[in-house]
Amino acid sequence: MQFSDEYFMRIALQQAEIAFDEGEIPVGAIVVCQNQIIAKAHNQTERLNDVTAHAEMLAITSAAQTLGSKYLKDCTLYVTLEPCVMCGGAIFWSQLSKIVWGASDAKRGFQRVQPSIVHPKSRVVLNVLQSECEEILKRFFEKLRT
Amino acid sequence: MQFSDEYFMRIALQQAEIAFDEGEIPVGAIVVCQNQIIAKAHNQTERLNDVTAHAEMLAITSAAQTLGSKYLKDCTLYVTLEPCVMCGGAIFWSQLSKIVWGASDAKRGFQRVQPSIVHPKSRVVLNVLQSECEEILKRFFEKLRT
Repeated sequence: MQFSDEYFMRIALQQAEIAFDEGEIPVGAIVVCQNQIIAKAHNQTERLNDVTAHAEMLAITSAAQTLGSKYLKDCTLYVTLEPCVMCGGAIFWSQLSKIVWGASDAKRGFQRVQPSIVHPKSRVVLNVLQSECEEILKRFFEKLRT
Repeated sequence: MQFSDEYFMRIALQQAEIAFDEGEIPVGAIVVCQNQIIAKAHNQTERLNDVTAHAEMLAITSAAQTLGSKYLKDCTLYVTLEPCVMCGGAIFWSQLSKIVWGASDAKRGFQRVQPSIVHPKSRVVLNVLQSECEEILKRFFEKLRT
């Protein structure tokens, strides 16, 4: 149980909470290799003034630095929101073996555009802690409107 | 003539030559705003040990820093090779108004996967200095095989 997908998604959610507190769209991501967390990141598009600074992109870059390898073949990415096309493309290049996400993204999720963006060998697990991952996004956009 | 697409693509090609000399897959990109070059970049995936360090990604990040705005609404991206899905997604988020590329990428170009990755309002111009942009890639892969 300790190293379940839910366990790691909770840590990704903590990253999303950091983004929330910083006024960023609250998305968090971690990369796990042999049950070790090798990268943690949260969305930083506002702080870095950079549309490419999605949680997944930062986590992939950071994981590659930790491993000293640009390929993340035996690694899993946990992300609280379904990756967009850009992040789906980065996941493809990184050769991540497994991708797990929480909330689906009906508008910008890569699966709506083209599921084959991710490599067919990569395992995809959807909707882990879905309601918690959706809740933080709802809370953020409600706060934005008030 | 001075500020034609060919003029700016030649500068992107100079960036591709820098990548070539560094042993990187030779792709170069620049971002132009009101005929001013606000960012130049070349592929650095090997040097940075980072699959996300494509020329376009680095150019988009750099242009946003120069402008102090994460959106590149009135800017044009010149890139020597058709962007991949990841870079196509970044182009979407950046709201670039025009994208010009040199060589097409039959295998990994975003247009084969899904042309709608790029925003429908963005103008796309293909195959500017196509043969020069193809030639540097051929030269690189031939050198790699010897």
